[in-house]
Amino acid sequence: MGAASLDPTERFLRACRGEPVDRPPVWLMRQAGRYLPEYRAVREGVSFLEMCRDVDRTVEVSLQPLELVGTEAVILFSDIFVPVPGMGVELDFAPGPVIEAPIRTLLQAEALCVPDPRESVPYVFESLRRLRAELATRDIPLLGFAGAPFTLAAYLVEGSGSNDFNALKRMMFRTPQVLKVLLARLTEMVCAYLQAQIEAGAQAVQLFDTWAGLLSPRDYQEWVLPTHRQIAAKLDHSRAPLILYVKDSSHVLDFMVESGVDVISVDWRVEMAEAARKAGQKVSVQGNLDPCALQAAPEEIAARVREISEAARAARGHILNLGHGCLPDTPVEGVRAFTAAAKALAP
Amino acid sequence: MGAASLDPTERFLRACRGEPVDRPPVWLMRQAGRYLPEYRAVREGVSFLEMCRDVDRTVEVSLQPLELVGTEAVILFSDIFVPVPGMGVELDFAPGPVIEAPIRTLLQAEALCVPDPRESVPYVFESLRRLRAELATRDIPLLGFAGAPFTLAAYLVEGSGSNDFNALKRMMFRTPQVLKVLLARLTEMVCAYLQAQIEAGAQAVQLFDTWAGLLSPRDYQEWVLPTHRQIAAKLDHSRAPLILYVKDSSHVLDFMVESGVDVISVDWRVEMAEAARKAGQKVSVQGNLDPCALQAAPEEIAARVREISEAARAARGHILNLGHGCLPDTPVEGVRAFTAAAKALAP
Repeated sequence: MGAASLDPTERFLRACRGEPVDRPPVWLMRQAGRYLPEYRAVREGVSFLEMCRDVDRTVEVSLQPLELVGTEAVILFSDIFVPVPGMGVELDFAPGPVIEAPIRTLLQAEALCVPDPRESVPYVFESLRRLRAELATRDIPLLGFAGAPFTLAAYLVEGSGSNDFNALKRMMFRTPQVLKVLLARLTEMVCAYLQAQIEAGAQAVQLFDTWAGLLSPRDYQEWVLPTHRQIAAKLDHSRAPLILYVKDSSHVLDFMVESGVDVISVDWRVEMAEAARKAGQKVSVQGNLDPCALQAAPEEIAARVREISEAARAARGHILNLGHGCLPDTPVEGVRAFTAAAKALAP
Repeated sequence: MGAASLDPTERFLRACRGEPVDRPPVWLMRQAGRYLPEYRAVREGVSFLEMCRDVDRTVEVSLQPLELVGTEAVILFSDIFVPVPGMGVELDFAPGPVIEAPIRTLLQAEALCVPDPRESVPYVFESLRRLRAELATRDIPLLGFAGAPFTLAAYLVEGSGSNDFNALKRMMFRTPQVLKVLLARLTEMVCAYLQAQIEAGAQAVQLFDTWAGLLSPRDYQEWVLPTHRQIAAKLDHSRAPLILYVKDSSHVLDFMVESGVDVISVDWRVEMAEAARKAGQKVSVQGNLDPCALQAAPEEIAARVREISEAARAARGHILNLGHGCLPDTPVEGVRAFTAAAKALAP
């Protein structure tokens, strides 16, 4: 196993592929975020989209968690909506995404274009190249990501965030042909976007299908699973493993396992032992501490990390993470306790 | 079984208790609601709380769905917050509940009183008595309900509705003793409130723990399950079966089954076949069509009703319902298609 000699990149990629490792690697979704005073300092005075387009600031905040809280992977600081304006959709952040003209008709869906992302959002790839160069000497893996077609569609149809995305579901039940075209365009965009990220240096990529868990199992199988399969089939997994995150996914774990991805990332509501059992030798698992649990005392956090790690043993590999993005009011010491507990895990 | 001779009350109570029936009974959560023009007419010009306190209007809208959409049970028109001001909590609807002074300290939690509900909210019991008298000649069952302690606590701590109720979870992790006192007071209130409803004529009662599904399995087991067990132990089930609704409950089904209730009510995300298998001979199941699916064509609604009913056969009994409350934009014809499909089910 060469347990003691694994550098963070090797450990991370092995965990993704289900190869033996000394212990699970650890990172956090939204690890570069408002809970860090140093992030807030860089973010001050610029809008969220300006921040995403500013390569210097992007590189700076993406790297911050390494030293500040001890995570073992860097994910590009960006947002799932960054590539969307290039498709011809006007949007703003207020602070959640607000779509000027929600997509409700076939004409609107068919009007969406799929540009070359290297031309529509060149700064994303410039940031990735800069990050990869910075990280090469430290053997830290670099992650890219994209919003998944269903979750992007949910916002584009709804016009903004929502508790239940009923407008999208109404479309599913009343004008399914519109949703089909919309998902097809988004799937094409996501494939090109992730492939370009891999070419720019991302060593693994995560697909965020945050809202797909709102569907019943049968609707998920019909509407969501095919988009994951298409994306998984298009990407070169030997160059960069694909991680699939779905929030609230206890009822669709079987579909996630069969989607062709390398790692399934689950939230705190999922019983990790069950996810790991279903993952088995097919996929690795990532997760799944409740972000709110970082409010607890360090020893409580450590106990939960040990429990999760133990429960994940039935899967071929495990990456320690939260079950959702790190919250703005999270105490920095809670995040440090989390990464420290992961690093203290026995092989 | 005397299939043809079952009146709606007998069918409903037998389904709750797992005794043989000709077919599942059908009703809808929030069946008296804004999707009905006749409801909107009665509701016009009065605030939501005024409406809940007005016995004439309450009785009128509670009965509306019987004729208008063909449901087979009547549930008291009310709100889970109706008994809360009596505990000493100032609240308003805007339109969701807004708590003037969110509960964050031990002092606040300990200051909550548990009044006799017959004195604090006499109109609830007057409405139930009137409804029971109206329904007696029609053999339609009357249901009462209450918000469950955890869900009420979620609002009381947060101060309003929320996507994730993080303030409540912070309390769980940082000042658990405050949450313990708060849940104890609420549990005591809920027991008295449901018992008084049964005495006023409710033939079954439903406990709404809408937000308990936000917790991880281990936190649910520690914080939510004991409250359900206490309530189930206090009530006289032979007089009125107890139905437990938890939204988003795929990960806590085992705990729901073991809580001592008679029926578990699950949302559309739960695989009904799995819920029914876990329910087995221990409890009956209720649910679970996605309310958004009432937007679909009548034949699609009927097909889904048949699927759900088929999947529920592994449980000792089944009550057809939605997975959550009926939405304001639901077409009335969709609701009628739903109840008609249920009535057309083969024995």
